[in-house]
Amino acid sequence: MASKKFNNVYIKDNVSIVGPLEKEGLLKNYDFSIDDYYYGEKTFEQAEIKMQNVVLDNLLNYNKLTDSKIDLLIGGDLVNQISISGYNASKYRIPFLGVYSACASYVEELIIGSSFISSKLAKRVVAITSSHNLNAERQFRYPVEYGAIKKHTTTFTTTGAVATLLTNEETGIKIESATIGKAIDMGIKDTNNMGAVMAPAAADVLNTHLVEMKRNVNYYDLILTGDLGLVGKEIFTEMLDKVYDIRIKKYMDAGSEIYTSSQETYAGASGPVALPLVLFDKVLNCKKYKKILVIATGSLQSVQLANQKLGIPGIAHAISLEVS
Amino acid sequence: MASKKFNNVYIKDNVSIVGPLEKEGLLKNYDFSIDDYYYGEKTFEQAEIKMQNVVLDNLLNYNKLTDSKIDLLIGGDLVNQISISGYNASKYRIPFLGVYSACASYVEELIIGSSFISSKLAKRVVAITSSHNLNAERQFRYPVEYGAIKKHTTTFTTTGAVATLLTNEETGIKIESATIGKAIDMGIKDTNNMGAVMAPAAADVLNTHLVEMKRNVNYYDLILTGDLGLVGKEIFTEMLDKVYDIRIKKYMDAGSEIYTSSQETYAGASGPVALPLVLFDKVLNCKKYKKILVIATGSLQSVQLANQKLGIPGIAHAISLEVS
Repeated sequence: MASKKFNNVYIKDNVSIVGPLEKEGLLKNYDFSIDDYYYGEKTFEQAEIKMQNVVLDNLLNYNKLTDSKIDLLIGGDLVNQISISGYNASKYRIPFLGVYSACASYVEELIIGSSFISSKLAKRVVAITSSHNLNAERQFRYPVEYGAIKKHTTTFTTTGAVATLLTNEETGIKIESATIGKAIDMGIKDTNNMGAVMAPAAADVLNTHLVEMKRNVNYYDLILTGDLGLVGKEIFTEMLDKVYDIRIKKYMDAGSEIYTSSQETYAGASGPVALPLVLFDKVLNCKKYKKILVIATGSLQSVQLANQKLGIPGIAHAISLEVS
Repeated sequence: MASKKFNNVYIKDNVSIVGPLEKEGLLKNYDFSIDDYYYGEKTFEQAEIKMQNVVLDNLLNYNKLTDSKIDLLIGGDLVNQISISGYNASKYRIPFLGVYSACASYVEELIIGSSFISSKLAKRVVAITSSHNLNAERQFRYPVEYGAIKKHTTTFTTTGAVATLLTNEETGIKIESATIGKAIDMGIKDTNNMGAVMAPAAADVLNTHLVEMKRNVNYYDLILTGDLGLVGKEIFTEMLDKVYDIRIKKYMDAGSEIYTSSQETYAGASGPVALPLVLFDKVLNCKKYKKILVIATGSLQSVQLANQKLGIPGIAHAISLEVS
């Protein structure tokens, strides 16, 4: 079974940082922001490492925790060999597990962390992720200086980082259950249309979650997807309707909640940090939703395999939050 | 605490495939081998995907299991965005978690899988990994056709794949406990000396395991490290002696157990598949060892960050096996 119910797993705290464009956008409740993409470092990669460093340092400080009080750090990012997370982890004396499911990495981290806490193998786990627009552009597309033309289906990688503290102590946000998604390849070869790559995986994991947990979609006050974007959202809701007979109403995609319409970010925000930024900044902050299903979505491409013109697999993982 | 004791987690089966050079070397008990690096495919990456495909198909067939009987597939590899594992996963209808800790990925997979089985969130988990010499050379160093000169500290990436079935049903191989390692940066910047990068992390995780589990190093009939190679092995045993006061005797490094001395593989075998190949082919097969501590070692570099001349973090994860 792909779905798991957890015992005594809670979100205790989250610290976030956002980039120059993000702080001019729709987000309001982040903890830190940066004014330029270098963040005082020599390279964009080192700036991204520093963003992870700042959110983790502050998470530990706010909660009066030292490294030895954290049982496990789980991290992932988009840079090759998730090297941002690996290099940041080396600044701490905390056991580290690296994960990768592209922009679904953050929810993968929550699922693995919840498994360790639920089984009493850990008491406190930190999930960390980040993305940096210029690192992603240079690695997956072209350096922005080249001025390559964008398609309307292209999403815009969010600059930012979050560190989230999971604990076995009761708080107002419970991680109740999760469904691990399957990698699904529908034959789409266009790396500038990740919404279409990821939508079938998101629809599959939502359907699997509802069937295995014996729930109706209206059980949830909100379904929050990660970064399907304008194009992916339409495919997602249409597939739910036509393939799975699920009519989704209380629905939000984090990709549409970061930038204003005048910010020219094409189909919307993407990157592993987009989802947790919106989750904490907006969804959990407004106290409006009690039962939330969070579905992170990832496109499992690499430059090597995308250039070989194979279909790109998409993936999505779901986690159910209960707010009291 | 970095160490975890598991309940009712067992290794049920393993299927392996090795490359052209590996089958001429020291390994004897692999299941499949390939004669050329393309394996009938158009590219080396597609050959590596096919290797994963063949070991997983055969693991399922031998054990009369269909996709729906596997609760979780956990995979990782060296290609950017672990795209070999992601693309292979898309050929199955099995929930998939991608992980990355370089050549320590296989033991990370066993640890996460064991956590799910131990907590009864899963009954059957498959851990899969692979590496392909020419994919790794092209990505991390130079295409072999360039004929770049090698240093004596350089290791040789093993070509092969393994798929391992973990289960909650009792078998002769128990996964008893594990220790998750920390990313450790000792300031070494040379990507051709990964043994030196990884040895401090291996020594740290072994010491942490022994302290937390209250065990003497002689508790184990064998300590098996992953791919420290000739140079890393010396640093590892010297650090254990001088820093941690641990004298290690019953010790083997998988990097020295794959190629013959005439095969000109510099400091020995590396790649995430090297360790499980030697573990199943030699260590578990000879029935000589009852208590085995397996320490996988990884160098968390990417081309981007290695070129920025930062120190490279190493990592190592340990898992304790009991054979009955």
